[in-house]
Amino acid sequence: MSDDRLERVRARMVEHGVDVLVLRPSSNLRYLARSVRHGFLVITPDGPPAHVPDASPLIPAGSRVAVDPQMLAHELLSIQERLGPQTLFASAEPLLAALRMRKSGAEIAALERAAVAADRAVASAAELSWSGATEREMARLLRRLLLEAGHDEVTLVTVAAGEHSADPYHRPTERTINPGDAVLVNIGGRYEDYCSDIARMFVVAEPPEDFEAMYSVVLAVHGAACEAVRPGVTAAEIDEVCRDAIAASGYGSFFAHRTGHGVGLDQFEPPYLSPGDRTVIEPGMTMSIQPAIYLPGLYGARIEDVVVCTDVGARRLNQSPRLLIVTDR
Amino acid sequence: MSDDRLERVRARMVEHGVDVLVLRPSSNLRYLARSVRHGFLVITPDGPPAHVPDASPLIPAGSRVAVDPQMLAHELLSIQERLGPQTLFASAEPLLAALRMRKSGAEIAALERAAVAADRAVASAAELSWSGATEREMARLLRRLLLEAGHDEVTLVTVAAGEHSADPYHRPTERTINPGDAVLVNIGGRYEDYCSDIARMFVVAEPPEDFEAMYSVVLAVHGAACEAVRPGVTAAEIDEVCRDAIAASGYGSFFAHRTGHGVGLDQFEPPYLSPGDRTVIEPGMTMSIQPAIYLPGLYGARIEDVVVCTDVGARRLNQSPRLLIVTDR
Repeated sequence: MSDDRLERVRARMVEHGVDVLVLRPSSNLRYLARSVRHGFLVITPDGPPAHVPDASPLIPAGSRVAVDPQMLAHELLSIQERLGPQTLFASAEPLLAALRMRKSGAEIAALERAAVAADRAVASAAELSWSGATEREMARLLRRLLLEAGHDEVTLVTVAAGEHSADPYHRPTERTINPGDAVLVNIGGRYEDYCSDIARMFVVAEPPEDFEAMYSVVLAVHGAACEAVRPGVTAAEIDEVCRDAIAASGYGSFFAHRTGHGVGLDQFEPPYLSPGDRTVIEPGMTMSIQPAIYLPGLYGARIEDVVVCTDVGARRLNQSPRLLIVTDR
Repeated sequence: MSDDRLERVRARMVEHGVDVLVLRPSSNLRYLARSVRHGFLVITPDGPPAHVPDASPLIPAGSRVAVDPQMLAHELLSIQERLGPQTLFASAEPLLAALRMRKSGAEIAALERAAVAADRAVASAAELSWSGATEREMARLLRRLLLEAGHDEVTLVTVAAGEHSADPYHRPTERTINPGDAVLVNIGGRYEDYCSDIARMFVVAEPPEDFEAMYSVVLAVHGAACEAVRPGVTAAEIDEVCRDAIAASGYGSFFAHRTGHGVGLDQFEPPYLSPGDRTVIEPGMTMSIQPAIYLPGLYGARIEDVVVCTDVGARRLNQSPRLLIVTDR
């Protein structure tokens, strides 16, 4: 148990009017307890935290209970059923996010080690022959490259070739990758508990028609979004800079998702660089910057790096060049 | 959308008195829709299923709602808040488990391909030098071997050396593996959507003192538990056979977990071979058999295979020999 983190979460509980906080095995438990075991961790503003197989007996009827946002529905329903309707349940996400968003120096160093490992995997991938392989085959190779670069676990592998690159949520298929294809590659994993997340565009032998012009827009927008990261700006404002820049290039309706998301113990965590997130960015917050343009039926392009907000603006944790990667030359 | 599975889940909804079933991106959604997209799938006993970003508007106040047991607490709390206390929520686990537990021929074939791939990874691991490596290094190698054997994703890698093998929930550490160590290896992954799960005991150069006698008990119990799998027996009865056999060997209090669990689209799914599970085993059900003995401070031993229940009893999907694997000879 990290006493400092425990004290800070207890202070937040009092602020939020929470009587009991219940965590399950999750990144939240890892953050507070530095390790993960089966069962539930029950925390109150005073008294020692209790690690128990069943949380219900430790919750007084009528309490205000904040539950791990990663708790599963069947676990929550079982607790709700035993405690009855007088007990009020809410997600502990706002309470926990406030703590977890601000990374310590040690956490930022861990995220940088993860980012550099992902950079190495991208560099190795650039040396491979992509022509003639399927998306699934390349996805398996990328997983191996992430592990060879020192990741303990692979959490994300997108390989989307040709027209598939225009689908932001594509999963690898048996489609063969051919010369002239653009390939969207987005990979990430867990490295000593902290996550990496990087996206680069590959082209096989040569880019498809008109692709480079569109790519240069994404590259410029990526730079603009990184520059927008500074203490005091809101997450939504960074997102707006990105959206405005894409719209100004005439691709406004072809950006389908948020500009980025927090990266830490989880691959996706607060803050979310999206129109609704009013989080004020502070030094120590880490987030991905991932502008993209998707042209349905044709191709898409996404560039993603993890950055940390410092006193003077964003510092990129990924060091991979952001230029188009040409394979099979 | 699989029409046959959809019809069967609707019939179950009527049986269970469920008005609305809400699934999130999960193995349950994959089972029913054959693909996973962002958002929620809302299913009613009649009318077409709706894939929507927000499920609440499609749920009439006062309904009986069954939710995906893999839904996250923050998602469920948000739906509960909008619908108010008249709407009753329950986990859809019993409803979905009844369908998913009975595998089709195609599903069993997929699980067998996954098991054989895991067997290949174990065979490759037996050729490696383990002496002098750390648990984490070997864990990374095992991940690569699972991918090289054709897995799309690695979901489970336990490497527990020496005294760590006595902890059933151990995670790989920087501990160096030395000659004379027993090493518990439990690996699994996703292969074309279906999961593998295999545990074998490795010993480096030579087994620790008295280890082989204990291992032979686990091996015999594994055989007895596999023989107990047949149509009409309950999950709890298989667990009891395993527990009784371990107790009869004098190791009764050193078996710390259930005898096994279902394996399918999820690494862990119903039925659970544990004292409380009254599920009647039927042909087509697939499950792991994983007896173990853990001697705290000394070592542990676990053997795990995936089996399918046929008309005449268990058929093992893993083909790896269950003998102790000696490395660095």
